Amino acid sequence: MPNPTAAMLVIGDEILSGRTQDTNTNHLANALTAQGIDLREVRVVPDEQPAIANALNDLRARFDHVFTSGGIGPTHDDITADAVAAAFGVPVGVRDDARAAMQAFYDTIGGKLTPSRLRMARIPQGATLIDNEISGAPGFTIGNVHVMAGVPSVFKAMVAGLLPTLAGGAPVQSRSLRVERGESEIAEELAALAADFPDLSIGSYPFRQEGIFGTNIVVRGQDGARVDKAFARLSDLFAENRA
Amino acid sequence: MPNPTAAMLVIGDEILSGRTQDTNTNHLANALTAQGIDLREVRVVPDEQPAIANALNDLRARFDHVFTSGGIGPTHDDITADAVAAAFGVPVGVRDDARAAMQAFYDTIGGKLTPSRLRMARIPQGATLIDNEISGAPGFTIGNVHVMAGVPSVFKAMVAGLLPTLAGGAPVQSRSLRVERGESEIAEELAALAADFPDLSIGSYPFRQEGIFGTNIVVRGQDGARVDKAFARLSDLFAENRA
Repeated sequence: MPNPTAAMLVIGDEILSGRTQDTNTNHLANALTAQGIDLREVRVVPDEQPAIANALNDLRARFDHVFTSGGIGPTHDDITADAVAAAFGVPVGVRDDARAAMQAFYDTIGGKLTPSRLRMARIPQGATLIDNEISGAPGFTIGNVHVMAGVPSVFKAMVAGLLPTLAGGAPVQSRSLRVERGESEIAEELAALAADFPDLSIGSYPFRQEGIFGTNIVVRGQDGARVDKAFARLSDLFAENRA
Repeated sequence: MPNPTAAMLVIGDEILSGRTQDTNTNHLANALTAQGIDLREVRVVPDEQPAIANALNDLRARFDHVFTSGGIGPTHDDITADAVAAAFGVPVGVRDDARAAMQAFYDTIGGKLTPSRLRMARIPQGATLIDNEISGAPGFTIGNVHVMAGVPSVFKAMVAGLLPTLAGGAPVQSRSLRVERGESEIAEELAALAADFPDLSIGSYPFRQEGIFGTNIVVRGQDGARVDKAFARLSDLFAENRA
């Protein structure tokens, strides 16, 4: 059975302006790979409702899961909940369970559930909440869409809570070999190897370090025995060039 | 006149698997912002021809420029040139000007233009070349699509060569204020400020550092005087909370 598929939708002007380097995608990608869910596409869109809703509707139709990051804070530019509700055609408003979760959080830290904070309890109808033990405001799942915070520490906590509830597939096995030969010098051997192992993905990633041109070769696949077999051939091929 | 718009298309299984953290997008985003070209969308797709061609055709129809990164190396998994040619419906093959550029590069460094390397001289019909002073193999521009390497040092060199040839707009001015108050505490003041300056983008980015909850507030816009005016009000508002 093929692995479940996923897309990531990053919502944030700050990524598109270059002000912030996105790291949530890389974190999610590694977590999904470990669980056997294939991340197939990533998009970054601005904090604008039509852009978010259009991207979401395209992605949720094409993949088993869509994970979003960003735009669920307390300020005027946090419009993800509204955009998701618009994409699903459902109403959005402060929900009792979200309000209760936030009240409990602020009671614990000794803070107040102000009107601005209460804005973060606005949840589209039909969604279930994703806990936020870091800063209180919940994420949510609606249909196959999982809406999470953009702040990396909160995003990570939400991913950690959410992923165990999703069915995974066969985790991808991967082995990599670092060889001190340029990518173009070994291209033919790699193509031949790839042709012999059509069930595996064999990638090559050139690097230059301290004046040395080299290549990281990565063999990936769901069948560990096949990965090991291809890796053994690879190791023999480049026995003299390993770094 | 509105600024030119742009999208970035990152081609790479290694980004989607989590093995590699993409940094090319952030580099391009900053370079475009400085030149007054608005980056409006980013996509990451796997090394597969239909995924690349479909994303490319969608993006090039919607934005003034599309910049791609990755998949133009010498190995079997480098299929970007073919996918771009397919998207434009033009043939692709080794071109004399690309071969000459690569021959000149290898003559300089004392290397050979092997068959694998020559694969990197395959350029879609009608494209113009983008120089690569780092590793020889050229990128190319076809229509409004600029195809560049994935290796960050090469990508940066190509961006540096390409961008001065593109018409820019009004560079975005930006000023930011770091305040030691949580985002939800200042949400109402920020919303009021944003309502008074509808021509500006006022973003807020929460942080937690050494136990302190704070917010970076970023004011952005094309009119420097308006940015300064909003920033002055912001500074007055939070005079006691500046960090």
